[in-house]
Amino acid sequence: MPRVVVGVMGPGEAAGPGELALAEQLGEQIAEKGWVTLTGGRPVGVMEAALRGARRRNGLTIGVLPDATGEHASPHAEILIVTGLGEARNLVNVLSSDVVCVCGMSPGTASEVALALKTGRPTILIAPTAVSEQFWRSLDSPCLHVARTVDEAVELIGRLTAP
Amino acid sequence: MPRVVVGVMGPGEAAGPGELALAEQLGEQIAEKGWVTLTGGRPVGVMEAALRGARRRNGLTIGVLPDATGEHASPHAEILIVTGLGEARNLVNVLSSDVVCVCGMSPGTASEVALALKTGRPTILIAPTAVSEQFWRSLDSPCLHVARTVDEAVELIGRLTAP
Amino acid sequence: MPRVVVGVMGPGEAAGPGELALAEQLGEQIAEKGWVTLTGGRPVGVMEAALRGARRRNGLTIGVLPDATGEHASPHAEILIVTGLGEARNLVNVLSSDVVCVCGMSPGTASEVALALKTGRPTILIAPTAVSEQFWRSLDSPCLHVARTVDEAVELIGRLTAP
Amino acid sequence: MPRVVVGVMGPGEAAGPGELALAEQLGEQIAEKGWVTLTGGRPVGVMEAALRGARRRNGLTIGVLPDATGEHASPHAEILIVTGLGEARNLVNVLSSDVVCVCGMSPGTASEVALALKTGRPTILIAPTAVSEQFWRSLDSPCLHVARTVDEAVELIGRLTAP
Repeated sequence: MPRVVVGVMGPGEAAGPGELALAEQLGEQIAEKGWVTLTGGRPVGVMEAALRGARRRNGLTIGVLPDATGEHASPHAEILIVTGLGEARNLVNVLSSDVVCVCGMSPGTASEVALALKTGRPTILIAPTAVSEQFWRSLDSPCLHVARTVDEAVELIGRLTAP
Repeated sequence: MPRVVVGVMGPGEAAGPGELALAEQLGEQIAEKGWVTLTGGRPVGVMEAALRGARRRNGLTIGVLPDATGEHASPHAEILIVTGLGEARNLVNVLSSDVVCVCGMSPGTASEVALALKTGRPTILIAPTAVSEQFWRSLDSPCLHVARTVDEAVELIGRLTAP
Repeated sequence: MPRVVVGVMGPGEAAGPGELALAEQLGEQIAEKGWVTLTGGRPVGVMEAALRGARRRNGLTIGVLPDATGEHASPHAEILIVTGLGEARNLVNVLSSDVVCVCGMSPGTASEVALALKTGRPTILIAPTAVSEQFWRSLDSPCLHVARTVDEAVELIGRLTAP
Repeated sequence: MPRVVVGVMGPGEAAGPGELALAEQLGEQIAEKGWVTLTGGRPVGVMEAALRGARRRNGLTIGVLPDATGEHASPHAEILIVTGLGEARNLVNVLSSDVVCVCGMSPGTASEVALALKTGRPTILIAPTAVSEQFWRSLDSPCLHVARTVDEAVELIGRLTAP
């Protein structure tokens, strides 16, 4: 059986402190559960925070990079998947995740949520804004979930990935 | 100078009659202006309607397909770009468009809007719902435009692509 | 019916004069037949020569670019397909071509020949070296063809794309 | 520091017994060195053999799949990278590998060797045929290496990935 992989998606440079704190706690809890943490692998924002949290708890971490080299990766990514695909790597992020967790929103993050819903990956918006929740719910996807807290998200991941 | 390419994005199977009518009129007007119409190339929904409209006015039409063959393409696409990339072809759609026009909303369409904003392509939401407009405006992108009618969109495309 | 698209692949910066001459003649003859010429779209080597030849005879030309913008495209590409996929755009080149023609050999060109054979696209090596011909023949693909001259290649394209 | 990742590429369905034996031994030795084994992830041929060998020695294994789901993956891949990109995933395979090892030859394998040379990844042909070695050497790439045995390949990987 392959390992359970949990993707954590969110803004890079534009991430706010609340999102970063959520992502870091989420990374920690993913690692404690024995799941693998996967992000977009750049050394900024939600990607970086989730990987840092996961490594603190000795979780396995994967960074799926847009560039054609591993030079600009987060130091907390143990395994680098180097795609050279630019923003098309967002599809690889979501397809490789058994569950996609979302902290915050930005154009890149929105592309990942949209691709996850389009391809049928379970997607959890964590503490979304009202505007964001309303929009994504309006697309009427059975894959969309909302969690108010990291604990709620982790409990939901457990149920969604139970064998 | 390369030809001006206008992308028309919108729901496939789930498109409503209002969106289809907008897309078909838009295709007609794109063709009348001498611009190239580009869509996701499948024979359904907004993609198909825009291509049909453009061909009716003898416009050049391009379908950028997710599949690895041209078998399931719209008959109104004169040039088939066969990507074999699945949903990652959505990135090719937006990057190849000088302006991205959006009729309706769905997960696939949302991925195209998000990728267009992320990569800096001018994007026009045509007659969006309030929920959709509010969400995309909340991402605070300078590339986002809203048009209430096809005429307004076409006038805006003209300004956005003026040399 | 979509237009017949003929891909012309070959070295960029490293192209030799013989390859460039073949590519330019091939572009001319593709255009005279009413077919569309598709290349990797950069302003160098075999790509550039084929597009220049095709435009001289008023053929429609498509450049499928690796970059995320059209800034560094050949001026002879009328339609730019901007992929942002780096070398993965080579797959788009071959899948979008009804026939793939090859002038010269380089690592990038070899990736296109290999992907064409893997995905079942008819592929014509034009005046290959003995080493190259022997290698590609050793892979035992029914899609592989060899032409000694441009005329022979054009005649073969006609047969391979006959309805 | 990210983990050292060694890619093992080779024919799938068409692999011969000699290639399979090489790939399995290689997977074992990669794992013994503490390196990660990465393949195209399908449950056939060289991909499968290398992953099986690596798992037997408790190595970490990654399968980079062409499909949009993990359903048809090798049972020996612990981490599934699900790309949905079809043959474009071959680029992800080579870019994600610190060294690309090649057992046998086929169109898909040739695309990986070519993409590795194009993007500058160190590439080791293991016990290639004379025709294959002669062709790849003719492309004159500084990244190309040839090893006669698995031991020789492993020693070379060690040197190529030394910090």
